[in-house]
Amino acid sequence: MKKKLASGKGKRAGADKLFVLKRTAARSRNVAELKYLPWDQIELETLNPLLQRQLIVGHEVMLARVLLKKGCVVPLHSHVNEQLSYILEGALKFWIDGREIVVQAGEVLTIPPNMPHRAEALEDTVDLDIFHPPREDWLKKTDSYLRK
Amino acid sequence: MKKKLASGKGKRAGADKLFVLKRTAARSRNVAELKYLPWDQIELETLNPLLQRQLIVGHEVMLARVLLKKGCVVPLHSHVNEQLSYILEGALKFWIDGREIVVQAGEVLTIPPNMPHRAEALEDTVDLDIFHPPREDWLKKTDSYLRK
Repeated sequence: MKKKLASGKGKRAGADKLFVLKRTAARSRNVAELKYLPWDQIELETLNPLLQRQLIVGHEVMLARVLLKKGCVVPLHSHVNEQLSYILEGALKFWIDGREIVVQAGEVLTIPPNMPHRAEALEDTVDLDIFHPPREDWLKKTDSYLRK
Repeated sequence: MKKKLASGKGKRAGADKLFVLKRTAARSRNVAELKYLPWDQIELETLNPLLQRQLIVGHEVMLARVLLKKGCVVPLHSHVNEQLSYILEGALKFWIDGREIVVQAGEVLTIPPNMPHRAEALEDTVDLDIFHPPREDWLKKTDSYLRK
């Protein structure tokens, strides 16, 4: 068996590559699994001096804990993902659908897919964002609009 | 036009029925829309003396704020919906996948579709549940397992 593997190096390298691709694909599909996750054990990602976040990625939904310092601006953007924002602490002002809406602690905004929105933290804010499906740009770190 | 409607009563009744069916279908699809929702303006539903909840229904996701008094038991059940439970206050003990997991305030449990689970509140607890898709049994109030 060992000899066979040794003599088939090229084939094995191909199989390894396929295995890696399969693993990557499985990750990008965000496999559904039972996970017990204290927030204080989840990586806190710093996007800019006023913006940090933590992510919990399920199968079809993603839960993000977003920490915004007062004055933090989330530039106008849109995404195919449905979004629910629940403000746990502080206040976030949204510009959306031609309206200005201040969402305070204890309030929720539901944002349909593809609806452009901008936001600014009026105070130090803890925001819980729920997305369906998970934000691929956040997972792949291609969300350059937040990294300024 | 009026005469035509009057003479076509049977047809109109059929059309009305179709209209009602369409409205029901639209509701059950949970149309995506921009909604600003303070939790304190959302109906608090009492399921039993130890269990209350509030619902925010999006298009493909549902956010539930579940209030459990100490000793409240959520009997063993399962559902096709993916679930994320974030304990905001208190502690909830889960029996799931052959394990016992106590989820405290500041901790999250991700539950895959169709995985049976039971839970008991070890303290007065505020639990945030996220479901994909929205729980039809909760919306239609056919969740008799919780109403005991």
